[in-house]
Amino acid sequence: MAKSQYPEALARLIQEFTRLPGIGPKSAQRLAFHVLRMEERDVLALATALADAKRRIGRCSVCYNLADTQPCHICGDPQRDRTVLCVVEEANDLIAMEKARTFGGLYHVLEGALSPLEGVGPEALRLPELVKRVKGGEFREVILATNPTVEGEATAMYIARLLRPLGVRLTRIARGVPVGGDLEYADEVTLARALEGRRDV
Amino acid sequence: MAKSQYPEALARLIQEFTRLPGIGPKSAQRLAFHVLRMEERDVLALATALADAKRRIGRCSVCYNLADTQPCHICGDPQRDRTVLCVVEEANDLIAMEKARTFGGLYHVLEGALSPLEGVGPEALRLPELVKRVKGGEFREVILATNPTVEGEATAMYIARLLRPLGVRLTRIARGVPVGGDLEYADEVTLARALEGRRDV
Repeated sequence: MAKSQYPEALARLIQEFTRLPGIGPKSAQRLAFHVLRMEERDVLALATALADAKRRIGRCSVCYNLADTQPCHICGDPQRDRTVLCVVEEANDLIAMEKARTFGGLYHVLEGALSPLEGVGPEALRLPELVKRVKGGEFREVILATNPTVEGEATAMYIARLLRPLGVRLTRIARGVPVGGDLEYADEVTLARALEGRRDV
Repeated sequence: MAKSQYPEALARLIQEFTRLPGIGPKSAQRLAFHVLRMEERDVLALATALADAKRRIGRCSVCYNLADTQPCHICGDPQRDRTVLCVVEEANDLIAMEKARTFGGLYHVLEGALSPLEGVGPEALRLPELVKRVKGGEFREVILATNPTVEGEATAMYIARLLRPLGVRLTRIARGVPVGGDLEYADEVTLARALEGRRDV
């Protein structure tokens, strides 16, 4: 009944927007009204970008990063250091790492983290592929850069057990007080980690 | 530089999302990653809904409501009371009124409100069309339902002056304490209006 207040094409657009994450009925309505005020050219650009992204982007067959080429632009880049491998949970973690611009090696995207509560076991992650890469590659170090969450820590521990027999150096990114943060607002676990990880000045 | 971390089709989608209101770079990235995880069918449904809404929805030639028919489904509804006209600023105000389900008359959408600061003068609103409708119609009452903001009040006053010579009854929606609200949190202007508008029990 509430739907019938909108012309049908508008009701459908609002409904489609509502299906996106973090967009409730109010935001969906506001977005839809905005679309009606946009230039037709810009609306078509958005519609095309949606269809294009979905159609053209898949996973890199080497590292499982999101890619529109095979292999992805990182695996295919001859400038990257092929002796260091950074293991992350998802493609957006890889992007966050790239934005930090300190890592010049290769990546391995797990496509998730172990989560018994959500039914995500080792078989759901790109673990056999990781073992195969480390066995076949010339890596001297594997950096475990899964998130500093319960799931991420468990995943890092699991991978450490898996890779230890291969004799490669295994490291874990440092956990500590975020730069720009304030000790007063840091939780006790983070502070404990920051103390444990302290370094000589 | 930051862009090149994404495959090109993904970068473009993120950029298109960023142009929507209330969507910053982080939300745009989250939405774009979600799109990649969606079924292709659902992505195409969203893309089609966007293009369709823009292409098929225009303004009703009678009341300037958003419509995919001429006249719109409200103007064309023989059940509606053609003697009462409710003047609102925008189509979403009309929808809010319809959701309240107490008004059974016709509407007139101004497509805005007077705002000298933003350079919106009377000529930008559907005022000649309103005067013409009131002159030519059989309205016994015109309800001024512009927003209870400075701009909305000014617009209501302006319309009142415009329509008074036509001898039609002019009313303004009540301003007062919102239902479910708490007096403690009502601002003084609203409370003053609530007192002024008090009624016998």
